[in-house]
Amino acid sequence: MPLILTPGTTLVAATHNPGKARELEALLDGRFVILAAGALGLPEPDETESTFVGNALLKARHAAQASGRIALADDSGLSVTALDGAPGIFSARWAGPEKDFGVAMAKVEERLIETGSSDRSAWFTSALAVAWPDGPAVVVEGRVDGELVFPPRGDRGFGYDPIFMPTGHDQTFGEMDPVQKDAMSHRARAFEMLKAALF
Amino acid sequence: MPLILTPGTTLVAATHNPGKARELEALLDGRFVILAAGALGLPEPDETESTFVGNALLKARHAAQASGRIALADDSGLSVTALDGAPGIFSARWAGPEKDFGVAMAKVEERLIETGSSDRSAWFTSALAVAWPDGPAVVVEGRVDGELVFPPRGDRGFGYDPIFMPTGHDQTFGEMDPVQKDAMSHRARAFEMLKAALF
Repeated sequence: MPLILTPGTTLVAATHNPGKARELEALLDGRFVILAAGALGLPEPDETESTFVGNALLKARHAAQASGRIALADDSGLSVTALDGAPGIFSARWAGPEKDFGVAMAKVEERLIETGSSDRSAWFTSALAVAWPDGPAVVVEGRVDGELVFPPRGDRGFGYDPIFMPTGHDQTFGEMDPVQKDAMSHRARAFEMLKAALF
Repeated sequence: MPLILTPGTTLVAATHNPGKARELEALLDGRFVILAAGALGLPEPDETESTFVGNALLKARHAAQASGRIALADDSGLSVTALDGAPGIFSARWAGPEKDFGVAMAKVEERLIETGSSDRSAWFTSALAVAWPDGPAVVVEGRVDGELVFPPRGDRGFGYDPIFMPTGHDQTFGEMDPVQKDAMSHRARAFEMLKAALF
């Protein structure tokens, strides 16, 4: 029996943010009802893995096991070549408890200067996992390559978007029209791959 | 397009052991030709994840990326309740460079005695991952519960089999007829789940 997500299925998203559940509904073309794990009172597991796909898988399997429903989780971040892939899975943590990505972007610049490297290449990764309770799980990963620019440019997007300029473009994700960004982002690529596999 | 493994496909197994590739062919009902990653000269990645599924996924994705072919990987081990799940993903490492599971089983007994706990419950886990190059991956996990017995009993099976007695049985995996063991093992359950998902 192939792994298919039947339209109308209720999915649990491994997030405590109801806004994120709505956003996931839209990214999956409104085919599913998505409940936030937080709204169901499910605990958040520690993200103990060392890769994006590993952490997405861990969160989705945990939510599926705890809820008895098909669950969806994501994990994403910025990897900088000259920093050996940092901040990577720690991208959100570099922004601190205040979730201040101004601080996080300044930290990236500081570390880059410390290396003495002129390599400004970087990439965004988005991993998605869908897990069936007591069953299999599917993971996908989307990636977009680019280079870092300082100071940050643009006030659109979120996270590290203002320092990331995708290859072949002259605007950062923070300057770019959201429609244009959504057509090429790591996240869009991951969702396209997920839909190709499970729709 | 659903995720299907078409019979006759050549798969790469993330192993350097040609015998293991033949065994995987048999476990997949002879439907596929399986090449050992080692025979293709592919390097072995570090197993950096903290879960069985995470490590199976990491190995399968690495082999798929390096070979450009669909890849299969497994990761398995024994988890002991009173040892907070140890040896777990370190099950093979407890046997040392000589792969001496007599040493590993003695270590389990020693640690158990140190805890002072009378809980002898344990479980075997087998995780399998199939990864498409630049594409999705599917993971499954099979588990069998039981309890540990000392001294080890039986000379069949391998690894920790002689100290593991599955729930509802009075023989260890080391004493059991291989056909009987294969009908209930963690590995058999993982392969059944994988076939149900991808055949």
